[in-house]
Amino acid sequence: MTTTRVLTGITATGNPHLGNYAGAIRPAILASQSANAESFLFLADYHALIKSHEPALIRESARSIAATWLATGLDPNRVTFYRQSDVPEILELCWILTTITAKGLMNRAHAYKAAVQDNLSGSEADADKGIEMGLFSYPILMTADILMFNGQKIPVGKDQGQHIEMARDIAQRFNHLYGETFSLPEAVIDETAMIIPGLDGRKMSKSYGNTIPLFEDEKKFRKLINKVQTNSLMPGEPKDPNGCTLFAIYSAFTGPAEQAALRQRYADGIGWGEMKQFLFEFLNEELKDKRQEYNRLMADPIQLDRLLQTGADKARLYASPFLREIRSKVGIGPLA
Amino acid sequence: MTTTRVLTGITATGNPHLGNYAGAIRPAILASQSANAESFLFLADYHALIKSHEPALIRESARSIAATWLATGLDPNRVTFYRQSDVPEILELCWILTTITAKGLMNRAHAYKAAVQDNLSGSEADADKGIEMGLFSYPILMTADILMFNGQKIPVGKDQGQHIEMARDIAQRFNHLYGETFSLPEAVIDETAMIIPGLDGRKMSKSYGNTIPLFEDEKKFRKLINKVQTNSLMPGEPKDPNGCTLFAIYSAFTGPAEQAALRQRYADGIGWGEMKQFLFEFLNEELKDKRQEYNRLMADPIQLDRLLQTGADKARLYASPFLREIRSKVGIGPLA
Repeated sequence: MTTTRVLTGITATGNPHLGNYAGAIRPAILASQSANAESFLFLADYHALIKSHEPALIRESARSIAATWLATGLDPNRVTFYRQSDVPEILELCWILTTITAKGLMNRAHAYKAAVQDNLSGSEADADKGIEMGLFSYPILMTADILMFNGQKIPVGKDQGQHIEMARDIAQRFNHLYGETFSLPEAVIDETAMIIPGLDGRKMSKSYGNTIPLFEDEKKFRKLINKVQTNSLMPGEPKDPNGCTLFAIYSAFTGPAEQAALRQRYADGIGWGEMKQFLFEFLNEELKDKRQEYNRLMADPIQLDRLLQTGADKARLYASPFLREIRSKVGIGPLA
Repeated sequence: MTTTRVLTGITATGNPHLGNYAGAIRPAILASQSANAESFLFLADYHALIKSHEPALIRESARSIAATWLATGLDPNRVTFYRQSDVPEILELCWILTTITAKGLMNRAHAYKAAVQDNLSGSEADADKGIEMGLFSYPILMTADILMFNGQKIPVGKDQGQHIEMARDIAQRFNHLYGETFSLPEAVIDETAMIIPGLDGRKMSKSYGNTIPLFEDEKKFRKLINKVQTNSLMPGEPKDPNGCTLFAIYSAFTGPAEQAALRQRYADGIGWGEMKQFLFEFLNEELKDKRQEYNRLMADPIQLDRLLQTGADKARLYASPFLREIRSKVGIGPLA
């Protein structure tokens, strides 16, 4: 039986929320439990520097993300779980790839083009105003993240599909110049990925300020659930589950049978207060042990460091000889 | 007595020639012998990848450059002499600096602008045609080379002055964002630097194909000196040393007294054959022991590796804790 190497990077500047959990963390952890997947999962802290120049935020996010993934079931013995910055080989590969990447390819990256568009749509004459090289070069670092481990399947959101195309382009160019070295990664875009709505009904997203933090303490968590916007129908009036934020959140964690049962209660006129109580209890049940473990891990950064270091050591067992081979192919290495 | 840290990088794709020796190698080695300079001198092999995708050339150049500098008097106990690729901290710093460098700054780099101009002056509509990210990002790597060691004085050719300005810009921005960390490097542009003419009288340069390799074997070396173009004046006719290639080469290695003596022989009508014999003997005397040492070192790549490794170890004694400090400032590092 052959295994597929699945590689996932997590960049975040901020603490994970319920939307991250339903849409990314939970499915990745489930996938990592599959027998024919070999999972590489990493904290992309060198990517985070692109988005934030606030050291405290970068540090706090790394801690919170590491604790979140471990608390929600990531098995570090099964998954190679590491911090990008603990594998310096990646940065070296990043430069090697920089020397063979066409500038034109980076010019076409969506994120860069959007930033330019932002500038030009205002009164700004300088298309590159405020744009840093991190944003411009970031597809190369992402390529290095993937190629360093010959990642085959890369689960990404739709907006990231282009980056995987770029990684393939760069891998092909390297193979062409220096001989077959990298397998070509494939994007795995999960069309059914759960996008759950936030407090105001729009997609739950830090940029909308409508998130429910995943591991808020129980009291605050209940308060936040109570804040979810609903319509003004009274208890006893039949309600439409479609377009209802509470129902959508519940659906992200349940199967058809449970959803059908809840639909019935909507038809029967469940009150919003009762529904919020129901959803709180349901989610709290799903999360309470994990929350406890999260809090325990957050209070034990030494253990987090130890786990991440073990993961980095495992990652480097692969990266280090592979980088030596890559260096040698481009002409870098011992003279003897 | 305070010492100044002088940092010099050597990128070359090809073997050193007499022009490199007179203009760069010899003065750098003399400078490294000064008591109040602490010299860092490195083979910029990760820069070489920008210019060449030929592994054999990159490898051969590194060997030849290392052997040349050592054979011409570089004292590895006195100078920190290392290969860029043996100090992975530099590549990590390069990425950190990438995340704070304005793209606009790179847009204005002379080398990039010249490449764009080349494209646009033809019938090419794509300004970035054939331009790789290595060329575009290279001032950031050069900045990392310098800041990694807090280099203070950077001897460069006039065409490199802008890069040192950029390094200062980037250092200032880092200091502004994350607190005082880097000293601001200064370019040292030697206006009196020897530029010696090649076989055809133009500046000796690999791109003109008019070079005299530094360590050619004696027979070939004599042949090349005999090939230097002269005018058709006969022996006995007075000759003008100004504008004479043979005289210019001699002048690069001698002082006013020796030059005055040779001027007299020109006035007395020295024949070109005699002058070439004189120049050959003079240069051969200057180079023969060095040539022998060069050949010995070229035949002993294990010793070269050992010397470079020792230099890298010394360089990393500085770079490694300094990178740890830099990482910590931007928010990267242990969680505990």
